[in-house]
Amino acid sequence: MNQNLLAPHVDALTCLLNTINQLNWDSSVNMPASASEARGRQIGFLSGMAQDVLVSDALSRALSVMESSSDPYAIQTRETLENAIAHHRKIPKALLREQSELVGVAQPAWIAARQKADFGLFLPHLEKIVDVKRRMADLIGYDAHPYEALAHEYEPGIKVSFLNDFFERLKVRQQPLIRKVHAAERPRTDFLRRTFPAAKQREFIARLVKEIGYDFERGRLDLSTHPFEISMTRDDVRITTRFNENFINSGLFGGLHEAGHAIYEQNVSPTLSGTVHVLDLIGLYAVAGTSYGVHESQSRLWENQVGRTLGFWNNHYAQLQQAFPDALGDIDVQQFHRAINASQPSLIRVEADELTYDMHVMLRVEIEMGLLDGSIQVKDLPALWAQKMSEYLGVTPPNDSVGPLQDIHWCKGLFGSFPTYTLGNAMAAQFMHTAKASDPAIAQGLQKANYAPLKNWLTTHVHQYGRIYTPSQLMERSTGSVLRVDYYLDYLEEKYTSLYHL
Amino acid sequence: MNQNLLAPHVDALTCLLNTINQLNWDSSVNMPASASEARGRQIGFLSGMAQDVLVSDALSRALSVMESSSDPYAIQTRETLENAIAHHRKIPKALLREQSELVGVAQPAWIAARQKADFGLFLPHLEKIVDVKRRMADLIGYDAHPYEALAHEYEPGIKVSFLNDFFERLKVRQQPLIRKVHAAERPRTDFLRRTFPAAKQREFIARLVKEIGYDFERGRLDLSTHPFEISMTRDDVRITTRFNENFINSGLFGGLHEAGHAIYEQNVSPTLSGTVHVLDLIGLYAVAGTSYGVHESQSRLWENQVGRTLGFWNNHYAQLQQAFPDALGDIDVQQFHRAINASQPSLIRVEADELTYDMHVMLRVEIEMGLLDGSIQVKDLPALWAQKMSEYLGVTPPNDSVGPLQDIHWCKGLFGSFPTYTLGNAMAAQFMHTAKASDPAIAQGLQKANYAPLKNWLTTHVHQYGRIYTPSQLMERSTGSVLRVDYYLDYLEEKYTSLYHL
Repeated sequence: MNQNLLAPHVDALTCLLNTINQLNWDSSVNMPASASEARGRQIGFLSGMAQDVLVSDALSRALSVMESSSDPYAIQTRETLENAIAHHRKIPKALLREQSELVGVAQPAWIAARQKADFGLFLPHLEKIVDVKRRMADLIGYDAHPYEALAHEYEPGIKVSFLNDFFERLKVRQQPLIRKVHAAERPRTDFLRRTFPAAKQREFIARLVKEIGYDFERGRLDLSTHPFEISMTRDDVRITTRFNENFINSGLFGGLHEAGHAIYEQNVSPTLSGTVHVLDLIGLYAVAGTSYGVHESQSRLWENQVGRTLGFWNNHYAQLQQAFPDALGDIDVQQFHRAINASQPSLIRVEADELTYDMHVMLRVEIEMGLLDGSIQVKDLPALWAQKMSEYLGVTPPNDSVGPLQDIHWCKGLFGSFPTYTLGNAMAAQFMHTAKASDPAIAQGLQKANYAPLKNWLTTHVHQYGRIYTPSQLMERSTGSVLRVDYYLDYLEEKYTSLYHL
Repeated sequence: MNQNLLAPHVDALTCLLNTINQLNWDSSVNMPASASEARGRQIGFLSGMAQDVLVSDALSRALSVMESSSDPYAIQTRETLENAIAHHRKIPKALLREQSELVGVAQPAWIAARQKADFGLFLPHLEKIVDVKRRMADLIGYDAHPYEALAHEYEPGIKVSFLNDFFERLKVRQQPLIRKVHAAERPRTDFLRRTFPAAKQREFIARLVKEIGYDFERGRLDLSTHPFEISMTRDDVRITTRFNENFINSGLFGGLHEAGHAIYEQNVSPTLSGTVHVLDLIGLYAVAGTSYGVHESQSRLWENQVGRTLGFWNNHYAQLQQAFPDALGDIDVQQFHRAINASQPSLIRVEADELTYDMHVMLRVEIEMGLLDGSIQVKDLPALWAQKMSEYLGVTPPNDSVGPLQDIHWCKGLFGSFPTYTLGNAMAAQFMHTAKASDPAIAQGLQKANYAPLKNWLTTHVHQYGRIYTPSQLMERSTGSVLRVDYYLDYLEEKYTSLYHL
């Protein structure tokens, strides 16, 4: 095929989207607050320019004169571009402008509403945003449910029928397990909230993420209010974290989580650099992972499937005690392992433990679907939230701030990304199951702080492909089956039965 | 005039050039080395895009339908754009590509040549670069000398006749002064090379630059190999420095120098934000200062005219001793003041002291002019360098690395910027002279660590105007006269006569 005609457009998209990531990274890590308005304009301008490149006549002409090819990469390149062009052509600029104007007002309203714990202040804004998202979904199109049009941006090809079945199967086994665990005696966790100096945390976590395979030669670790991973290119993949001096978990598992994302980005095949297979052309974002769910599978795998096991801490607990002798000198590795896996009902998603996290997600997915198809009204959210929280976790929010006002997503116009958190958990379990079954050296390595066999398996079966395969193609190729929630449920049941002596 | 038609183009240029600065800042402060190739492509792409916007038919059309206006800002906007468009249209893309390809090869060749101290390895590359620069100068056009075409990019409107006269006057008085100073007894300087822990240096310099008027709410201080100042917008003006633990001068005066640049950028009138008056449209760079020379005048003013005076250290030396009791406990402020102003002949421009620095500059300006007009051949540089160094400073380089291979400028294709260092020194003296004469509160303030009167004078007469006035218009408006080297020579003679008891 005639790649020459395509190349300048793909180069332009690559440069623009990589640059936007750089601007976003800087905004969160370095930028003085005074510069946020100008920075917003810069990012908006470059995003608009990327969209212009994508829907330009020149790019469409270049595609139309491409010779047909049997090279699968070439075919995928064409399909990726054609799908993205079709998607972006469906959404008129006026609607995007309407959304961004709404968001501009809704975000401060959400902040004020959250401060005053008054959902009513946010309600009219959210109603307008839901209206815009419904119109957008109709323009984009969907098979069975408007939610699919929006969730597609985060998990390409995801169907509501699949999600309904997935969460139904999940809750049938997860809810009884949660109830059993919460009825059992809770392990000691007080020592996790002793004093852990930030500088020592930084030193420890930097060594730890390096050991599991994060390459500092092609990255860096900084501080930010909200931890994140972002890649400019596969040779510049940065992570951030934050350190709570009175709670060791945040820095520790936040660090492993972001390193998991970063190891994905750092190990995409170099042959994909500069191609559309490391660009999210629907969301217009430079990212090498094939979907938010698959990306989350990599962070959750290292954070939970590796980082919360007894084997992992048998390898590293002595170092941790050395770093924090005052806080952990009197605590043995078994106590530590039980504490970092302790579960309890909680109101806030981002603070939830591994066992209960998915219930928070499920609640949001049900609400988002209902808002989109009209079966749920915005005004009913506080009552509905309380009812679902009570049903799923046995707790009810004392006010709206710790209820439907807790997440930033909706005020930013983001609908459809929540499922990917739980999809990621389930994918992580399926990848881990398959990896361990395929080669005994992987499980053996984990017991001996040799993480290379696991990382290599993931690179071979997941990382290297970038966005070439859809999430479901990737799952089938790497694990021999579509995503099945049972691997994850088996893992949870086995883990918590043993931990809590159920 | 119809600003509406112009606005999207100016916005685009603003966003692109601000973003390029952000990418450059990150490259020097944070970026892993592995990412430099991709970063180079990003910057090249955005620069090309900025040039495309500038020479686009759409922008020219918008200019052509602008109503005539008596608003001086509008007239300047039009002139600035028309001049920049004319400039960029004169240079064919093929020549720019030729230059950047040459530079791509010349820079590693220069590094290798410098390592091996062998000018011959760099010679063929420099010959080709000089050839390209001569062709470029011819295309751009000039009055009397091809050097004007290139120097214009750094000092708009500068003439070779002016430079020749300026340096002639300079050397007539500066050279005898240098000889007298170097014949006198040299003050003690050994204690400047004691141990100064970097963390303490950082703390001290951050407090110091804040005191002279650098606003940390709209900036930040980081580390980089080569100190620099860069602004994204006036609300995000960043400085970097480096700390040599065995030489206090680098961090101290480097910090004051960069803060001087930053105070300029931070105090441009907010009404100029987003206009062409804070963009260098010839060099395609976002910068608020009207020329390299005027910018350098602001850094040199704070570094030397303020920062190397006895009055300044009477205000701050006790704090400095407190920060470094081991290194400076036995040294009094007079000793310190004499040491930081000590002069000696030296081979390396960037390490030269205030008194000898201009001789290094003059040598380069003479060579650049000669290379451009053909009166000097590249192959003769080592011999010529030795001869001029001997004449101006009484030293000769033992090898090419500390001779004509020491500066990075030429291998990057940068010709014409050297004069601005000495122009800046002279402008700083003229500004300082005028400021002090206009208001006694300024000199009084300097003695009492009250830097606001001086800073306010500079903001009123220099900073606020951004790039609205040419350097010579600005000098005349603010000091009542064109740039005259005598203020600077008076300052140097007075200072060194007193310091060295001549």
